[in-house]
Amino acid sequence: MPVIAVDAMGGDHGPSVTVPAALAFLESVEAARIVLVGNGEAIAAELAKLRRQDVRERVTVRAASEVVAMNEPPADALRRKKDSSMRVAVNLVKEGEADACVSAGNTGALMAIARFVLKTLPGIDRPAIASQLPTRFGDTLVLDLGANVNCTAEQLVQFAAMGSALVASIDGIERPTVGLLNIGEEDIKGNDVVKEAAELLKASSLNFVGNVEGDDIYKGTSDVVVCDGFVGNVLLKTSEGLAQMLFEFLKAEFTRNLFTRFAAAVVYPVLMAFRSRIDPRRYNGATLVGLKGVVVKSHGGADVLAFTNALRRAYTEVEHGVLDRISQRIAEMHAVAPGGNGDGTGPLRAHA
Amino acid sequence: MPVIAVDAMGGDHGPSVTVPAALAFLESVEAARIVLVGNGEAIAAELAKLRRQDVRERVTVRAASEVVAMNEPPADALRRKKDSSMRVAVNLVKEGEADACVSAGNTGALMAIARFVLKTLPGIDRPAIASQLPTRFGDTLVLDLGANVNCTAEQLVQFAAMGSALVASIDGIERPTVGLLNIGEEDIKGNDVVKEAAELLKASSLNFVGNVEGDDIYKGTSDVVVCDGFVGNVLLKTSEGLAQMLFEFLKAEFTRNLFTRFAAAVVYPVLMAFRSRIDPRRYNGATLVGLKGVVVKSHGGADVLAFTNALRRAYTEVEHGVLDRISQRIAEMHAVAPGGNGDGTGPLRAHA
Repeated sequence: MPVIAVDAMGGDHGPSVTVPAALAFLESVEAARIVLVGNGEAIAAELAKLRRQDVRERVTVRAASEVVAMNEPPADALRRKKDSSMRVAVNLVKEGEADACVSAGNTGALMAIARFVLKTLPGIDRPAIASQLPTRFGDTLVLDLGANVNCTAEQLVQFAAMGSALVASIDGIERPTVGLLNIGEEDIKGNDVVKEAAELLKASSLNFVGNVEGDDIYKGTSDVVVCDGFVGNVLLKTSEGLAQMLFEFLKAEFTRNLFTRFAAAVVYPVLMAFRSRIDPRRYNGATLVGLKGVVVKSHGGADVLAFTNALRRAYTEVEHGVLDRISQRIAEMHAVAPGGNGDGTGPLRAHA
Repeated sequence: MPVIAVDAMGGDHGPSVTVPAALAFLESVEAARIVLVGNGEAIAAELAKLRRQDVRERVTVRAASEVVAMNEPPADALRRKKDSSMRVAVNLVKEGEADACVSAGNTGALMAIARFVLKTLPGIDRPAIASQLPTRFGDTLVLDLGANVNCTAEQLVQFAAMGSALVASIDGIERPTVGLLNIGEEDIKGNDVVKEAAELLKASSLNFVGNVEGDDIYKGTSDVVVCDGFVGNVLLKTSEGLAQMLFEFLKAEFTRNLFTRFAAAVVYPVLMAFRSRIDPRRYNGATLVGLKGVVVKSHGGADVLAFTNALRRAYTEVEHGVLDRISQRIAEMHAVAPGGNGDGTGPLRAHA
């Protein structure tokens, strides 16, 4: 039975969100266990508010005396807080006591700790942050969303391989299409790193469909979109900001006067259906991909529903054996990559 | 009286859009003249369809025998098509026969031709593409939107100075706030170029407010947002793609069944008010800033209303003397920039 370690103290709301979400998750998934990591008293207080004795049997509490602050420098969190709820949750994965861990805490700290404790998979230089975004036709997995501000062409190819394996294993798509984010479809466009990555991807065994542009993401042009972490972070936050502005403008128009308020009441179910279709809570749970362990990052401001989805994401990755799938895909790429000779010295060289 | 040279053949629709837009512009602006550049017959045919003899007096036609194709490599357009409508329109600015030129044609070709013919202003290494985006509170000018895929920190500072001068002169804001697009507000975030640019901006005479993130653009956190052309292009196209997807989802919900269609009829004026608030046609007209001449690029797919707005943008820049304002701002920066000594060898060094 898969065990998920939860950093119960992480995020803006801590145990008041993580504990009810853990129980809600266990109610919907019968074959799973949860270890809540953090301040025992705070966790017990939240557990006491909830009935459901049946799912309580599948919950364990593991004490951790420290908490990583949301704005704490990752290096400090890594070096000084050896007993933080985040660190202990990641340790449980390392020690085999849990199959995955989920945290809504500080992203940089989670990445630093996970990388230090779990290490990267063979053939992967650096882990990336991957998340699914809604598109006109299904979802698209985009990576990297902010872990790596400077990427080499080889790293972009590794992201492509990991993203492809993730989508293949979770969505059951045999050969997911991979697009390289660029500023034009033509080969001559873009900077040197992107041009080189395109050449490597063409020569790889991945189902590379070429360059895609910003608007292709929401058109659902490819199953996977690859970019460096600076660009990925900007596009993710720009999207969040634009969606929020549009909702506010829509709300402003519907609350302008008596007539529009009446109109809003008439169309309320329609507006709610629209909103639920792109509810960011449905997409909560970004994967820290490329590590020797399943680590899922929830949005810091996640509510119970959103955090439950992040737990579900971690569970699904464990159930589908994504780690094996990624390792397998990377090994295949080494076998066929130009200049790759399987000893880790080719373009997809192993992490030193 | 300001004269605007129009590349009448540019864009997806050519004279069928550019000619009616030119007349519509002249109807609303009495103190302006237009030179339509391109195929004389095609232009005459469109002019014949329109009455308004009063504004016709302020229209001149200049023949040009070639047209730059939308997908033509910029270098080819520059070298081989010396008599293209785009080239001749830019030449008119160079020769002082026009005060500005507007084209809906191939962006790369327009940039290459404008740079070759007009040259950059003193102190500017490379021109940038700047455009206003709607935000919750007024507009924000974002640059570069795609002209420069690799930028140095010094170039980002030049973009900041140009953007600041543009907003100061057009919107009448004394000291526009400038934000540097990054993936976190903290100084330690981002790549080396962005970190160095932040240091230079802090030491400059600009009203620098620090790092801004993707979601700050639509919050209207700063009057100007600076980024490299790769990031700018991705954020612009991602925004277009997301807005389009949201409109389609909204439409889909309102056309789902008889009840929702009725609801849509009730709220039609509200939805139209919402749509017009962020109508991309209102924001048509990106400035190629940093050249010794006013050059405005219209969206290739612009309709008459959108192209009219691009013409209005060019006219406004001429009226407000933006070129002088930019030159002045750059000169001021040289005077106070750390290491700058006014001879063009400081961080804001002159173009070689």
